[in-house]
Amino acid sequence: MFAVEVRDHIMIAHSLPGAVFGPAQGLHGATFVVDVAFFRPSLSPDNIVVDIGRALDALRAALKPLNYANLDEDPALSGQVTTTEFLAWTIFNRMAEARRDGALGPYAEGITRMRVTLSESHVAKGWYEADLD
Amino acid sequence: MFAVEVRDHIMIAHSLPGAVFGPAQGLHGATFVVDVAFFRPSLSPDNIVVDIGRALDALRAALKPLNYANLDEDPALSGQVTTTEFLAWTIFNRMAEARRDGALGPYAEGITRMRVTLSESHVAKGWYEADLD
Amino acid sequence: MFAVEVRDHIMIAHSLPGAVFGPAQGLHGATFVVDVAFFRPSLSPDNIVVDIGRALDALRAALKPLNYANLDEDPALSGQVTTTEFLAWTIFNRMAEARRDGALGPYAEGITRMRVTLSESHVAKGWYEADLD
Amino acid sequence: MFAVEVRDHIMIAHSLPGAVFGPAQGLHGATFVVDVAFFRPSLSPDNIVVDIGRALDALRAALKPLNYANLDEDPALSGQVTTTEFLAWTIFNRMAEARRDGALGPYAEGITRMRVTLSESHVAKGWYEADLD
Amino acid sequence: MFAVEVRDHIMIAHSLPGAVFGPAQGLHGATFVVDVAFFRPSLSPDNIVVDIGRALDALRAALKPLNYANLDEDPALSGQVTTTEFLAWTIFNRMAEARRDGALGPYAEGITRMRVTLSESHVAKGWYEADLD
Amino acid sequence: MFAVEVRDHIMIAHSLPGAVFGPAQGLHGATFVVDVAFFRPSLSPDNIVVDIGRALDALRAALKPLNYANLDEDPALSGQVTTTEFLAWTIFNRMAEARRDGALGPYAEGITRMRVTLSESHVAKGWYEADLD
Repeated sequence: MFAVEVRDHIMIAHSLPGAVFGPAQGLHGATFVVDVAFFRPSLSPDNIVVDIGRALDALRAALKPLNYANLDEDPALSGQVTTTEFLAWTIFNRMAEARRDGALGPYAEGITRMRVTLSESHVAKGWYEADLD
Repeated sequence: MFAVEVRDHIMIAHSLPGAVFGPAQGLHGATFVVDVAFFRPSLSPDNIVVDIGRALDALRAALKPLNYANLDEDPALSGQVTTTEFLAWTIFNRMAEARRDGALGPYAEGITRMRVTLSESHVAKGWYEADLD
Repeated sequence: MFAVEVRDHIMIAHSLPGAVFGPAQGLHGATFVVDVAFFRPSLSPDNIVVDIGRALDALRAALKPLNYANLDEDPALSGQVTTTEFLAWTIFNRMAEARRDGALGPYAEGITRMRVTLSESHVAKGWYEADLD
Repeated sequence: MFAVEVRDHIMIAHSLPGAVFGPAQGLHGATFVVDVAFFRPSLSPDNIVVDIGRALDALRAALKPLNYANLDEDPALSGQVTTTEFLAWTIFNRMAEARRDGALGPYAEGITRMRVTLSESHVAKGWYEADLD
Repeated sequence: MFAVEVRDHIMIAHSLPGAVFGPAQGLHGATFVVDVAFFRPSLSPDNIVVDIGRALDALRAALKPLNYANLDEDPALSGQVTTTEFLAWTIFNRMAEARRDGALGPYAEGITRMRVTLSESHVAKGWYEADLD
Repeated sequence: MFAVEVRDHIMIAHSLPGAVFGPAQGLHGATFVVDVAFFRPSLSPDNIVVDIGRALDALRAALKPLNYANLDEDPALSGQVTTTEFLAWTIFNRMAEARRDGALGPYAEGITRMRVTLSESHVAKGWYEADLD
């Protein structure tokens, strides 16, 4: 399996309702360093998994509605507990949509799997990884 | 698959008997930066894989008997060659036990897989990854 | 000059009023990985700059009022633009106070300089460094 | 599954023919930090996946023909678009050969899988991972 | 002293004439991860050293002529041995010019010192640091 | 001021006598990732601070007596509390000697300052920095 992974980041505010979250129940925030990995069993005719420049552009576009935002007031996330894991899944879905929409280039249908990792500090991170349709 | 990974570290002395270890046969030591990844196919009702705070506490507890120790004199490791790989497996087993004992919280039975990684320097690391019962 | 540096982190919400901040004028947030460096011209009788355990404890205590907080509502920061640089200076002052109060141990008067660094992402950080009285 | 991963690096020049590469079509270069992971289901009699010293030596040997080179003039890569992904696969094959040739030690036949990762910057990397015969 | 540091990178080809460079005398290449630190004794009215967004834009502009280039054919570097240290100094000068030209914003005359660091691998880096006029 | 920094590591056992060290009074160990920075006000005729290859070789030689050792039994360290800070100073002195002995090359007398940093974990490090005679 071949893979390429690219990195960007977002800086958000949110609160995490639920006793399990302790002090994180109040309004606080996070920098999430976001890594997206693209997997495919064989390379495209250009010997790539995905064009790194396009992948970075698509990631930046997918992150834009989240960046510098208060997620508690984002209608698209209404009623959701916006944990690191949940946000990884959310960004995964937006990147999957970007691929379907052609934002990852002409050969991107050969990408069969993705992983989105959010590092929230030097001691904790979360990710979501799955096959693509 | 969803995942969360948390980090702590230990500082230990040990020797590695066996010609293959060359100069590491003598008594020396290591800092192991320890990452534990928890995997589950779907999130808990709180949208988490595991509570990060609890995971860090459980990891600290699992590492405590090893930290600032001379592993050559640890009865629990007697007769074992305490390589990075072996210690990853040892810590994996202790974390699996912590999960069974409830230290990872009420929904932790949904965690189906774990990985324990020990980074011993900027150029080498080892890990053990397996499904949980 | 000898030095020791220790690391912890905080996760905060805030807004940055002022046209220069563009999208960061709205409520958003950040993880700040916080490094505090302690400098002294000669070592203590124990051959240390500062006890690393005590330094980590003092840093955790200094960060506690900021962690998981909305800085816009912190009375101690009222009327301030809580940039990375400003927060580095704020934490510097709290650590200087911790040293005066004895939280860094009996020989800490030999610490003549400190630096507090806040890394806000993989591409940006800020710090404040100064001599101590 | 057990694993060990070791790190080295190469500094190369190359050009990437193909419109998809934009400005990277011209002659430029890269530092590739190269990580090789070795996987095996059970440890050797010495409690290891592979001897870290031997693994580092074998990696250095595999990288030697590429290091400080202009890949456009390497006969072994003639006619190939030497992307990060392709180079990961190339180094994978050389490491697989090193294992077959005994460079990884007597028990290396127990290594059932490898992954070769090339990090080209702080925001992009590529890798190839596959089972071994 | 206050400081802010921002990061970008370039991917270049070059050769290093001179016996001291051994195998690096031939055409090869490097990724340089470039960090620019800005120092000032007191903060601007907005509580900043420099606007991080502007600093990143100015750095990207300063790096553009070098990125994806063969430095051996860059007329601006003609006759120079383009070592990591020399390139740090070159980028320092371009960033100093950007500050004089207003690219770092209205209060940037308060920046009294800069440092430009080029990391060429996980084991080596070089930098140039100096006061500004 | 120009600078170059190179990295290597050692894996040692030791004990730290003195109540301040708490659990570290017993025999334990550490990996120290060692960075040595060389400073000089102007570059050599080859546009370098120091040859990176020679610097790495000299560092490896300086570290060799410490690597894979039990520092409690090293006659050269007898009666010393081998803290991170003290070891940074020890390695500094050995590197200064290497420079005087010519191990850093013909122009190394132009190196006017050095810094030796030992990172003992992802949350703590120590260093010693001073001018050279």
